[in-house]
Amino acid sequence: MMNIEKLVKDNGLTLPQAPEPVGNYLATLSTGNLLFISGQIPIWNGELLYKGSLGKELTTEQGQSAAQICALNLLSQIEKVLGQRKLKTFIKIEGYINACESFTDHAEVLNGASDLLFNIFGDKSAHTRTVVGCTSLPLNASVEISAIVELE
Amino acid sequence: MMNIEKLVKDNGLTLPQAPEPVGNYLATLSTGNLLFISGQIPIWNGELLYKGSLGKELTTEQGQSAAQICALNLLSQIEKVLGQRKLKTFIKIEGYINACESFTDHAEVLNGASDLLFNIFGDKSAHTRTVVGCTSLPLNASVEISAIVELE
Amino acid sequence: MMNIEKLVKDNGLTLPQAPEPVGNYLATLSTGNLLFISGQIPIWNGELLYKGSLGKELTTEQGQSAAQICALNLLSQIEKVLGQRKLKTFIKIEGYINACESFTDHAEVLNGASDLLFNIFGDKSAHTRTVVGCTSLPLNASVEISAIVELE
Repeated sequence: MMNIEKLVKDNGLTLPQAPEPVGNYLATLSTGNLLFISGQIPIWNGELLYKGSLGKELTTEQGQSAAQICALNLLSQIEKVLGQRKLKTFIKIEGYINACESFTDHAEVLNGASDLLFNIFGDKSAHTRTVVGCTSLPLNASVEISAIVELE
Repeated sequence: MMNIEKLVKDNGLTLPQAPEPVGNYLATLSTGNLLFISGQIPIWNGELLYKGSLGKELTTEQGQSAAQICALNLLSQIEKVLGQRKLKTFIKIEGYINACESFTDHAEVLNGASDLLFNIFGDKSAHTRTVVGCTSLPLNASVEISAIVELE
Repeated sequence: MMNIEKLVKDNGLTLPQAPEPVGNYLATLSTGNLLFISGQIPIWNGELLYKGSLGKELTTEQGQSAAQICALNLLSQIEKVLGQRKLKTFIKIEGYINACESFTDHAEVLNGASDLLFNIFGDKSAHTRTVVGCTSLPLNASVEISAIVELE
């Protein structure tokens, strides 16, 4: 059994509490070998960090930190439902960046998540992705990331 | 055979005409047990309702009404192709909100759709979701929602 | 074996070099019969064309040209990994348009991609889609399109 919490810890990181959905939807849902994870924002143990718009209130580096927390929340959600199953690979992550019109570093921001996944999972972190700029995100979050992963 | 139209009616709602795609694409497409549904906007029997931006021209409550119509259009598209098959569960809905920079109630708006699905389908309405703010949507729509559902 | 390059050429078009991912992610990843393709921007053999915002710096027609290049890049990515497998059908394309608040022609812009796919693949081009307006896109791209396709 893969212990995501241990892998995260081995990389000097801490797995946050998995944020609860705030409505009639689920944080995760599996169909066949695919596991879908709802959009995660940079909530760290109940508190939303890095609020605001990239290129205006926040720097690219702060956006990368926000993307890392989103990625850790994705991992926390996966760990919560993994049970005896094993993560085979990531399939896709969708990155939504709260960004002003002149912002162009969307890819660098999402690299905060992609690099974290690569450092923890190596080849199993393989994923396709999209990244786009949004006028605004729920609760004034700076970043939102959803994912599809494949289980063994 | 699941009769979506009857379930909708039992909840005091009416299924609208399924909007036709306006280009070289399909409203729905199935692969294996997964059915993909193209982004639906709040068109009610041919007329686009609730035009404009959340937080500027429209209130959160109006956005919820728009999201409900999007959800009903998703159901209408599903019903149109379901035939003898049955809906097993929703998998994911993607909510795009036409929203200004200061808007933060994206989740509340999309709850208009999630709650409607829950009221009609109960446990079969289970879904993951993303919701983000957009500068603009097709035809000045206030909300657009796409979905992936699983058939039995 | 389907030769995408030949089909593209038969339509008087040229397949560009498939853009390399610029981070710890993949351009394409397959699971079962599904192939996911990362968001493609209008990079033509290394140079990003049609930069800017629709409705402000660019016209709808220029956006359609940008969407065509995104579609050709999607095809180039597919061709690169297809090997002995065959394309069965497109499943979904997701169109993100760099667009100002007053822009309403998102569907027309994405038709640049949908029409190109239809002209090249006919019935195999069948796909669902979403299209939304973004404040900004990576590197000031005007359009980004991702896709899911089914292989035989």
